[in-house]
Parts: sequence; structure tokens; C-alpha cells
Amino acid sequence: MGGDFGADVVVPAALEFLKQDKETNLILVGREELLREKLGSHPFGDRLKIHHASETVSMDELPSRALRNKKDSSMRVAIDLVKSGEADACVSAGNTGALMATSRFVLKMLPNIDRPAIITALPSIQGQTYMLDLGANVDCTASHLFQFAVMGSEQVAAVAEISNPRIGLLNIGQEEIKGNEQVKGAHELLANSSLNYVGYVEGDDIYKGGTDVIVSDGFVGNIALKSSEGVAKMISHFMKEGFQRNLLTKLAGLIALPVLHGLRRRIDPRRYNGASLLGLKGIVVKSHGSADKLAFANAIAIAHKEVLADVPIRIAEQVKAHLEKREIA
Amino acid sequence: MGGDFGADVVVPAALEFLKQDKETNLILVGREELLREKLGSHPFGDRLKIHHASETVSMDELPSRALRNKKDSSMRVAIDLVKSGEADACVSAGNTGALMATSRFVLKMLPNIDRPAIITALPSIQGQTYMLDLGANVDCTASHLFQFAVMGSEQVAAVAEISNPRIGLLNIGQEEIKGNEQVKGAHELLANSSLNYVGYVEGDDIYKGGTDVIVSDGFVGNIALKSSEGVAKMISHFMKEGFQRNLLTKLAGLIALPVLHGLRRRIDPRRYNGASLLGLKGIVVKSHGSADKLAFANAIAIAHKEVLADVPIRIAEQVKAHLEKREIA
Repeated sequence: MGGDFGADVVVPAALEFLKQDKETNLILVGREELLREKLGSHPFGDRLKIHHASETVSMDELPSRALRNKKDSSMRVAIDLVKSGEADACVSAGNTGALMATSRFVLKMLPNIDRPAIITALPSIQGQTYMLDLGANVDCTASHLFQFAVMGSEQVAAVAEISNPRIGLLNIGQEEIKGNEQVKGAHELLANSSLNYVGYVEGDDIYKGGTDVIVSDGFVGNIALKSSEGVAKMISHFMKEGFQRNLLTKLAGLIALPVLHGLRRRIDPRRYNGASLLGLKGIVVKSHGSADKLAFANAIAIAHKEVLADVPIRIAEQVKAHLEKREIA
Repeated sequence: MGGDFGADVVVPAALEFLKQDKETNLILVGREELLREKLGSHPFGDRLKIHHASETVSMDELPSRALRNKKDSSMRVAIDLVKSGEADACVSAGNTGALMATSRFVLKMLPNIDRPAIITALPSIQGQTYMLDLGANVDCTASHLFQFAVMGSEQVAAVAEISNPRIGLLNIGQEEIKGNEQVKGAHELLANSSLNYVGYVEGDDIYKGGTDVIVSDGFVGNIALKSSEGVAKMISHFMKEGFQRNLLTKLAGLIALPVLHGLRRRIDPRRYNGASLLGLKGIVVKSHGSADKLAFANAIAIAHKEVLADVPIRIAEQVKAHLEKREIA
């Protein structure tokens, strides 16, 4: 029910996903009557069920209030289904803070993981780069950053099918003694671990490629992500303006259209939709609130991959192994 | 002598600047023989002097070593000239860390300012946005961030000729309780000051316009800047690749060229070259190491505006006034 368009996007996205995927079953959680209406008749039989939930969490609702007062919201019920094992994963386009708080409350953290982190893929010249944390944690210790690296490594191994992903630690390169204490501490932990750690990377390395997972605290990660979106939008704005100037430039725009569309496809945010909440005893994927059908279907596909790879179990095992190795050393 | 091209860029840039500006005098600091050779004959008479310095600081030299060992470097001598009053400002394309350390050591900080900060202009949909700090300070208290806001406000009033610039504080908007302690503390200080504070802004607001000065710590500011550069380069890379694909796309590229050049002009980093070191008892402007003639001339023009507006004195007065007001309140 969440996101800017609610069932108007989620229902068609579910149908789209089931068309592509032949084995997965989906449960739509929300107001039964509304969902039945949006769904109409469909050819997927038992592969698509509806689970009623009477309430919804609004996009601007305080997470603590949603958690306390909305026990029968579509978000809460969907996460409860993961907890009870009736569902293997939850995908939501709803209120990020509420999704995070409710997931953490209902599912609990994995052992040896202090905090959940948000990860997503971003385009790069060489393909894509995954980045975490994107806003769940404003202050992080070295140990938190190390946990993010372990979680990111397992997630990317599963979702992008990269064995031994290259991990970079986001830092600045300008000054004599690079970075703050947390980043320097995380650098030590990573350099002495069995992770495929490539060292410090800078902001522009996100888009250069050469790294599969970039680790930072949530404040820095969120600012990097939003700044990037801002630049892309500004360039797109100037380009549109430029091609709209007069008849001649409009004609040029028409001729350049296939190339411009190709560019748009490569950096299309819909292709990168789906931010996973890592570190929980369960799989939760956040879709962008403004996602359309294709974008939301992509978020479902990410959750599906996490289920197949048992990402939470892999993360728990890896974190434990790293801790044990450190204790021996 | 600094930067990627040394005198090959600085000398032509100086001549270019003198051509545009009719009143300013320039002093070229560096190896006299080399500078004379690059300079050749010129029509500017006494407006362009050479001041000999026997050494140079290399781009990868440790700032502490440069400071200790290179007492006759072009960088050190140029800053000494500002200290002695023989020059009103220093412009350098050299090693940022060494420039910062040497400026701070020779010129000293203004009273009531704890740390220097680096500020530069960035393009926005509505014109330009200034941002500080861009990497001088990795950890900042609320009070440091407040000082940056005061310095940024005075700098932008002087350089961009905006009276009462709008100040925004860089933050993330995702979670219930926004931001970290430092940012929340700075928010309180700014909201209770006479600065034109517009509140929290997010990463994408840098490029949207609506704010004249955006304040953050140097770690976050540097990551935002570098991430933005990375995205712009990736888009440019994909665009070039797209237009190079075949004969048809090459033709389309040729036709679209005027519009693409227009876009490039609007976001041309050369137009934004020149990052000022604020908070010092003197004016120091850092040019990008890879700056060309036009870009370096732009950095000289920024220093010139700071001189005309007496930015350091204005900053000192404003910080004092804010402190006094706070003591009364």
C-alpha cells in the first residue's frame, strides 16, 4: 500500500514479476477489497495471494508512531509474515524510517551485527557499484563500518553473483593524514581481514568502477547519493533546456534522441531500484517511493535473489567467522 | 611553480588576467630565470614583477616536510609576501595540504576562528552555490560549522556580490531524528543567529539552487564534491561513447554539438576554478592543479575580489559580532 502510488504500482509490478519468474509465489499485503479490484482476473492462480491488512503507514508518519499504533498496517503485517516464515522476504515502497524501525523491532538483528544498513547498486562506467550505508546510521564506529563491509560483501556475492567482491572504504585524499578516526580504524580492520579489501576510495570512484562495494557511514553515503542525483538532474535539465531553445536545436535533439535514450537507459534509476536492509534476521527490500511498475518489479527480483542465496544466514556465518579469526589472531 | 603545468599555465594566465583587469599588479613567484623565459616581452611594465624563489613544493610532498624544509619554495615565499604586506593575496595551483599548512603557519588564524575552511562555487540550475568545507577539516564541532557559515556568508557577499547570502546546513532527511549531534548543534546556533539561515538542505539541493552557501564538515563536503565530479564524468563518458558508436550517431553528435558545448560551458569546471582558504589573516586561493590558462585566471580574479572586499577583516568583524550577540543573549 506504500509509496507514492500504492497498489497502482505494486499490483502491476507483481504481475510483471510473475510473468518473468516461473517459480516464485507472491503475497500482496493490504486492503483486500482494493487489491482484488486492482488485480482483476489474472493467470497466476495460487502463485499470487492476497493477505488482508486494514491499515496503512503514511509516507510522513513518524516511525515510532507507526511502530506503536499501526499493528495492522500493510507494512507491519508483511514483516510479520517474514517473521512467522509465511513469507521469505518483504518488499515495500513505503516510509523508509518506519520500514527500518518495524523490521528491526519485529525481525531483530543478526547476532554480532549492531545495526542494520541500507545498500543499493549505482551505475558505474564499468557496470555497477554497490554502496552502503545510505542513511540508516549517522554515526558509526570502525567496527560498524567493518560489519557493513562483511554484509555488503555477502549481499553483492548473492545479488550480483560476484565471488569475492572488491571492497573499498570511502575516504578523502586531500590531507596528510587521511580520514577521521572511525575510517582509519575500519581501514585497519579491513586490511587485516580475509575480505577482498582494495583500500581507500574517493567519491568519484563510485562511478569509475574498479570496486564492487563501497562502505561509508550513513550520513556520508546519503550525501554522496543525493549529491549524485542532484548533478544528474541538473545535467538533464540543462540538456533539455539546450535542445528546447529553438527550431534548430529541437531538430538536433530529435536526431540525437536514440543516443540520449541510450544514455538514459544506462543510468536509469529504475534499473537500480531496490535498496536492501541488511543485518536483520530476515530479508527486507525498500523500493523507491516513486518507483513505477518496472522499478518495483526490480526490487522484487532483488529480494528473490537474496532469498535464493540465504543472505541473512551467510552474513551471520561470515561475521562469526571474522570475529573468531580475530580472536585467534 | 605548482600544479600540473607550473609556469606554463601560471604565466599565460597572469598575462590574460592583466589584459582584462586594468588596475591590479601581479608578482610571479618562482625561479626567476625560468619565469623570465616563459614571460618573454610583455606590455604590462611594472604591473607584472618577478620575485625569485629557488625551490618548489612537489604535488605529492608531505605538507609537514614542505613546511619544515622548503623555506625558499615559490609557495612559501608567495605566502611570506602576503604576511609582509608586499602582496595582498596568494594564488597557487600547488599541493593543497602544503598550501593549507604553510598558510596557517605563516599567516595565522583570525581571532575566534579555530580552523581554516576551503570554499568553492559549484554550478546549480539557478546559477551557482558555494560550498564549504571541502576537505580541510575531517571532524567538526557545531561551533566549527557555525564559524564556516559566518565565513561563507562574508565570502559569498564579497565574491558573488550577494548581500545576505542564504545559508543551508547539509544534512540527511531520511530518519526520524535528522543528522548527527554536530549538525543538530550547528542548526541551533544558526537558527538563533542573524545569518540568513534557510535550514537543513540535502545533497541534491547543492545543484537545485535556492541556497547560496552550503555548510558541512570537510569529510562530507569533499565526498559530495568528488561524487558529483564522478557522476558528471560518467555521464560525459557514456555520452561520448554513445555518439561514437557508428556513422549515424557520429552525425547526430555533430548536429547536437552546439547544444552539447552549451551544456559543457554551463558546468565547465574552469568557470568555477578557485577555492579560497578562509579563516586566515590573509587571502589565499587554491587553483585546481590541472587548471588551464582561463581557469587559473579565474582563480586570480577571485583573489582580487576578496582583496577589494577585505574578506578577512569582514570575517573577523562578523565572527566577533556573533559572539558578542550570543554573550548578551
